[in-house]
Amino acid sequence: MKKMPKKVIILLSGGLDSTTCLAIAKKEGYECIALSFDYGQRHSSELQAAKRIAHFFDIKHHCVLPLPLHQLGGSALTDIQRTIAEYSPDSAFPNTYVPARNTIFLSFALALAETHRATNIFMGVSAVDYSGYPDCRPAFIEAFEKMANLATATTLHDTTKFKIHTPLIHLSKAEAIQLGTRLGVDYALTVSCYQATSEGYACGRCDSCYFRKKGFTEAGIPDPTLYFPSSHY
Amino acid sequence: MKKMPKKVIILLSGGLDSTTCLAIAKKEGYECIALSFDYGQRHSSELQAAKRIAHFFDIKHHCVLPLPLHQLGGSALTDIQRTIAEYSPDSAFPNTYVPARNTIFLSFALALAETHRATNIFMGVSAVDYSGYPDCRPAFIEAFEKMANLATATTLHDTTKFKIHTPLIHLSKAEAIQLGTRLGVDYALTVSCYQATSEGYACGRCDSCYFRKKGFTEAGIPDPTLYFPSSHY
Repeated sequence: MKKMPKKVIILLSGGLDSTTCLAIAKKEGYECIALSFDYGQRHSSELQAAKRIAHFFDIKHHCVLPLPLHQLGGSALTDIQRTIAEYSPDSAFPNTYVPARNTIFLSFALALAETHRATNIFMGVSAVDYSGYPDCRPAFIEAFEKMANLATATTLHDTTKFKIHTPLIHLSKAEAIQLGTRLGVDYALTVSCYQATSEGYACGRCDSCYFRKKGFTEAGIPDPTLYFPSSHY
Repeated sequence: MKKMPKKVIILLSGGLDSTTCLAIAKKEGYECIALSFDYGQRHSSELQAAKRIAHFFDIKHHCVLPLPLHQLGGSALTDIQRTIAEYSPDSAFPNTYVPARNTIFLSFALALAETHRATNIFMGVSAVDYSGYPDCRPAFIEAFEKMANLATATTLHDTTKFKIHTPLIHLSKAEAIQLGTRLGVDYALTVSCYQATSEGYACGRCDSCYFRKKGFTEAGIPDPTLYFPSSHY
């Protein structure tokens, strides 16, 4: 009898990191269930990217959930009245931080995992070339995993354990790009910019663009990103 | 200068426990921001109850968020094709368990707390007269609190700590009812039944009705719940 591949949940934003993470999980032979969120992010073209990427990787089940994060406020990423901060090496993290976003995203991934009888969740966070967001750090991921193993019916009476896989957490952006390229990722499909246009053009100025650009340069791989024409400014 | 009361977030379902919890927080002098969820629960009359209770307690800010839990499946509480299990002392917990529900609810409470610069969250879970749900136990709450203190910008660079208050966790239903009654709660406003009608009539047979009924009996306080007429069956 053919062995069924193990099911995993992948948080797929449509950006560079989550796409690399998906390529890794596919390479490891997992059956991937992708999970994306329509949370009022102004760069909603990343959701279109997530759909393209799910198609590219032949993902059978791609769950896109609407979440009312914009109703909570507190972030330039979900509030079009605010201006997205340009990259600055001096700030702790930019105003694109969304309160408790990764906690919320992982909570839904946990629920989806439980309903699919999956116990593995993949997430493309990195704590190397990143914006300093608190919920991308290893200590947060470890604490979430511990909590998850007390939170669900799945782990109540048996030894099953949820595992949050973060294969990029100690990789630089350049290393992630090199790895993804070897695994066949077409980064032209991905959108990272916090204020990408609906056609997927990037600003080249925000934190996310900064780390993406730097990554391609350091990796020695041509950057396929389409940037706004300078006449835009 | 008049001292401003400390702001807290209260998870308010509209049931007996969360209402008691709100009465406790009000008694302690907190400014309460109530948070409820419209998550496709079949007993949506509890949401109407939450609104009545917020009005009763003069809550200025009541946030009601739509959440797509019914899209995830896995529970009779969000799937009208399934039958709500009647109370049984033999089952570990009933089919009204919603995967990762309290993790998701607390994640949103954490986000709302951060946007309001609040660090205290009140939740009316109890681990005494309860359905055995894993995410009502003290170990889960403690693990969530630890995770929360690694998850947010608020706690990144200072000594501020989030605190999850669960004042009912070690109380029986009867003790909660006695306490709430002393604090002026009108339990006729609350809805506990998992399949309450839109008018708020309770079935008297589900887990939630079982513990509520038993609580009023043991407390020696008249039960104000309106039950379905027996002709309903």
